[in-house]
Amino acid sequence: MRSHYCGEVRASDIDSTVQLYGWVHRRRDHGGIIFVDLRDREGFVQVVFDPDETPAVFADVEGLRSEYVIEVSGRVRRRPEGTENPDLPTGEVEVVGESMTILNRAETPPFMLDVEDDEVGEELRLRHRYVDLRRRGMAERMKLRSRITRVLRDYLDDHGFLDVETPMLTRATPEGARDYLVPSRTHRNQFFALPQSPQLFKQLLMVAGMDRYYQITRCFRDEDLRADRQPEFTQLDIEASFVDEDTIMDLMEGMVRRLFGEVLETALPEPFPRMTYAEAVRRYGSDRPDLRIDLELVDVADLVADADFKVFSGPATDPHGRVAALRVPGGGSLTRKAIDDYTDFVGIYGARGLAYIKVNDPAAGREGLQSPILKFLSDAAVDGILQRTAAEAGDLVFFGADKHHVVNEALGALRVRLGHDLDRVEEGWRPLWVVDFPMFEWNDEDNRWYALHHPFTAPRDEDVERLESAPGECLSRAYDLVLNGTEVGGGSLRIHHEPTQRRVLEALGIGAEEAEDKFGFLLDALRYGAPPHGGIAFGLDRLVMLMAGAHSIREVMAFPKTQSANCPLTRAPSEVGEAQLRELGIRLRRPSGGSSEG
Amino acid sequence: MRSHYCGEVRASDIDSTVQLYGWVHRRRDHGGIIFVDLRDREGFVQVVFDPDETPAVFADVEGLRSEYVIEVSGRVRRRPEGTENPDLPTGEVEVVGESMTILNRAETPPFMLDVEDDEVGEELRLRHRYVDLRRRGMAERMKLRSRITRVLRDYLDDHGFLDVETPMLTRATPEGARDYLVPSRTHRNQFFALPQSPQLFKQLLMVAGMDRYYQITRCFRDEDLRADRQPEFTQLDIEASFVDEDTIMDLMEGMVRRLFGEVLETALPEPFPRMTYAEAVRRYGSDRPDLRIDLELVDVADLVADADFKVFSGPATDPHGRVAALRVPGGGSLTRKAIDDYTDFVGIYGARGLAYIKVNDPAAGREGLQSPILKFLSDAAVDGILQRTAAEAGDLVFFGADKHHVVNEALGALRVRLGHDLDRVEEGWRPLWVVDFPMFEWNDEDNRWYALHHPFTAPRDEDVERLESAPGECLSRAYDLVLNGTEVGGGSLRIHHEPTQRRVLEALGIGAEEAEDKFGFLLDALRYGAPPHGGIAFGLDRLVMLMAGAHSIREVMAFPKTQSANCPLTRAPSEVGEAQLRELGIRLRRPSGGSSEG
Repeated sequence: MRSHYCGEVRASDIDSTVQLYGWVHRRRDHGGIIFVDLRDREGFVQVVFDPDETPAVFADVEGLRSEYVIEVSGRVRRRPEGTENPDLPTGEVEVVGESMTILNRAETPPFMLDVEDDEVGEELRLRHRYVDLRRRGMAERMKLRSRITRVLRDYLDDHGFLDVETPMLTRATPEGARDYLVPSRTHRNQFFALPQSPQLFKQLLMVAGMDRYYQITRCFRDEDLRADRQPEFTQLDIEASFVDEDTIMDLMEGMVRRLFGEVLETALPEPFPRMTYAEAVRRYGSDRPDLRIDLELVDVADLVADADFKVFSGPATDPHGRVAALRVPGGGSLTRKAIDDYTDFVGIYGARGLAYIKVNDPAAGREGLQSPILKFLSDAAVDGILQRTAAEAGDLVFFGADKHHVVNEALGALRVRLGHDLDRVEEGWRPLWVVDFPMFEWNDEDNRWYALHHPFTAPRDEDVERLESAPGECLSRAYDLVLNGTEVGGGSLRIHHEPTQRRVLEALGIGAEEAEDKFGFLLDALRYGAPPHGGIAFGLDRLVMLMAGAHSIREVMAFPKTQSANCPLTRAPSEVGEAQLRELGIRLRRPSGGSSEG
Repeated sequence: MRSHYCGEVRASDIDSTVQLYGWVHRRRDHGGIIFVDLRDREGFVQVVFDPDETPAVFADVEGLRSEYVIEVSGRVRRRPEGTENPDLPTGEVEVVGESMTILNRAETPPFMLDVEDDEVGEELRLRHRYVDLRRRGMAERMKLRSRITRVLRDYLDDHGFLDVETPMLTRATPEGARDYLVPSRTHRNQFFALPQSPQLFKQLLMVAGMDRYYQITRCFRDEDLRADRQPEFTQLDIEASFVDEDTIMDLMEGMVRRLFGEVLETALPEPFPRMTYAEAVRRYGSDRPDLRIDLELVDVADLVADADFKVFSGPATDPHGRVAALRVPGGGSLTRKAIDDYTDFVGIYGARGLAYIKVNDPAAGREGLQSPILKFLSDAAVDGILQRTAAEAGDLVFFGADKHHVVNEALGALRVRLGHDLDRVEEGWRPLWVVDFPMFEWNDEDNRWYALHHPFTAPRDEDVERLESAPGECLSRAYDLVLNGTEVGGGSLRIHHEPTQRRVLEALGIGAEEAEDKFGFLLDALRYGAPPHGGIAFGLDRLVMLMAGAHSIREVMAFPKTQSANCPLTRAPSEVGEAQLRELGIRLRRPSGGSSEG
């Protein structure tokens, strides 16, 4: 039986006999003596085999290669002076091997285990994930994730939340992303859908009187995989009854604060700051601002509305337009090339250009400035801009002028990029609640309103009466938790009055009949005694990623899919036999042609 | 804000003001005073409204109906003498209502909430599950389940197990039950499969050095739903490295013992008894014997091998046959009708009859017996049977004679049924480890060997060399945990040497090429440094069901499917649009004909 994990042997164990199991991380021969770095989940320890002391096992030891699995027993001793390794928790000691058994041999690993994440192709890492996960960083992240879920569960258990499981084989959700479908063999021509979230089930649990619910559960979205998305991801899903926004936000703050305290030994602010959606978008161009970066957007539409410059005056006078400035302290030293790069960058977000003013000497008026657009602006406009942005000598001011959402997305993203490029990202953690979201957002393409959160989000009481007359002005009782510019949680109070739910669906263009067909069971439930309720859902992968300091959620998942949604390890998805498809009552539209060759 | 859950108001709260939220369980008017039984997740409390004391809210109170959701504040007082309800934890007190707000109205519920599970059709209960879960029994079961998972998780966390999530969208498993398939939109003509268990992933996690893993996870089997099966069910999945059978069994015993101790305040035996598969089948006709029932099978083939009675002598001389007797103490009083019923019952398991001997006076030899088969048996056989079964006056002895598996299934089931019918089921909990399972079982229909557990189960060391020569005699390193006749957990040490894995696959008729195609990634992993490992999986639904004393796993799941695998609440599965199918690259084999009417 194991006496210690390799990584846990300490000076306090000196002179005791230990029994270790692990992998040969490295073997070094030094003057006839063999040093083995033995590795397990908890770290490394150095084992020394001396042919004079252990002749019986020495032949086996000489045969050891990287990643062989062995069992060792030996005595712990202090390392000879000068050979300690202060970088290693076990670096003060070594184990003098007394016996050794090879439990399994190993082929040469497909990549070295000492490399950084990005030194090996991801495809190769995922194909041999069972080797990749042995790497220190990956092992630590898996342990961190397990620890995080434990702290979260403990907190919720301690606060009266019940862990309740909701179905995975369920009904397609008509609003939202694309569902993964599962053909039913027993119900011909019918399909289950994998849940995008347990939203409706958790609401039904509130109607059922469960009062406080949570679940750490898998969710599925068959989206095109841009950015850092996965077909399946994990959500910490929470709902409570007889609560208001403050109760939920307070409970969740307590949870996140405990999490960071216990796991990262970091104290988060108490309380978390709150900001309205309108303010966040105005100041940061984003509803998930990274507060570690101090750059801010400033509106200047009024200053340029009558400029003889359509690029500015057009958006400035368009009710759906915005003209904003972003002061970059010290940005005066940006090269032409850098500015061109940023211009390309904002182009990704639809911006058709990136006007700027370099500020050499703000006191000198026009003379102290340098800009291709200067000639189009009046003195008053220039003065106003300098004053409002508080630009100083050596600064640069960027401008965005377009439809509201283009300016916000372009300058919002530019702001974050500049923060990183110019090393203006503060250390530490900046949580933020964003509140007072609009209920709806208009979609020009589809010519209809969409729910900004989801159709079950409650409007503010004072907005219920104008759901039909002024949908664009209605605010919801939603709240998002943003951490360092990443949305880690989102929630709301839900609609618990059936007539209000019908009106919101109506506002989304879902008539009575369609509502009955798609959401009939929810509407039924709301009529049978639904309590006021609300909740939140956290993206667990994202939260763990942030806490781990990882660059992708794939780095905190044991077996993620690639960016093109397949698994190089198991080679899923894969083809299935005709017999199986026949049983499911489906056929392929364009079956792969069976090759007659080979 | 709530001060107490309704069910938690106690005598110690007398004279304090409480704020309660809940559902109107019942309203009674008594001499102008209104009594409301207010209910929430934790129970009931009686709230009293007196029109003289609270005239302002009394009109509203008079309008209350069952299942209205209300908020109440009031003062706690001792109930008047003689009106206490000792059956209710809150029965000493009542709340004098001071204010009351109706938070939501409710239609008359589709069924009464005071009924027992089986008094309402299951379809109706599931369609309105949000009402059904408000019933005391259901709410308690949901709380129990949450408590159970918490205790299990705590134990495993405390013992160094990491909670690691494995994929839900994965590759079809070639052996075992039918997979649920998920068409991939991005990989045309390819399908994911939902996991039947995380078996291979947890083994890969061991190869990855995770050392100790657990997960409470959903599994899926598209089986025909006989007995008490669900398309999706929950497994507590566990794996550990560098362990032998004893280590795992000891760890798991500790877990189950802690679970029953903490949740049910019951002490389970220490250690759990162990029994070989061979002994279990010989004595109980089953590899999951219910030890609460003391009836046992006794082999009598040798006594009847040369009887002039083919029904007995045939199986007695067939190497695949069995002739066994089951003594039923006091069974002499069974009526002809009862015996006929049992004969029909064993017919379900393929038995073609049910011979018996009634024992009136065992000392009187033949004269003291009553049986249609007596004339076929020699005196020696009769004496031998009486002696071996230890039958006494007033007993009855049943016989099974057929192929081994028919006798075992028939008499094994009869044994349990008799135990219940004759009230011979001991109180309490009887856990049992069943060990030394055969590696393989022969399937006559398919003319091949199948793995009794799964193809990754390790054979005993001494059997490795006869995997090919004597597969039927090889025993595995598997262990099942049986509790009161239900298999709650099953596991094994796994194969960690690649050559052994290949040989076992070969023994199952899976050649090198097929093995590479289906299990290539596992075989690869075993070559890259796989530690010895093993584990177990518990059926969580079944365990909770047993602990809750429920009759079906559906009673311990929040939103189960019906026996025909659909959800009456959400009406899943459901039809999906042609556009969606086109996107997935599939079409229906026999599309539902679109009706031209209506």
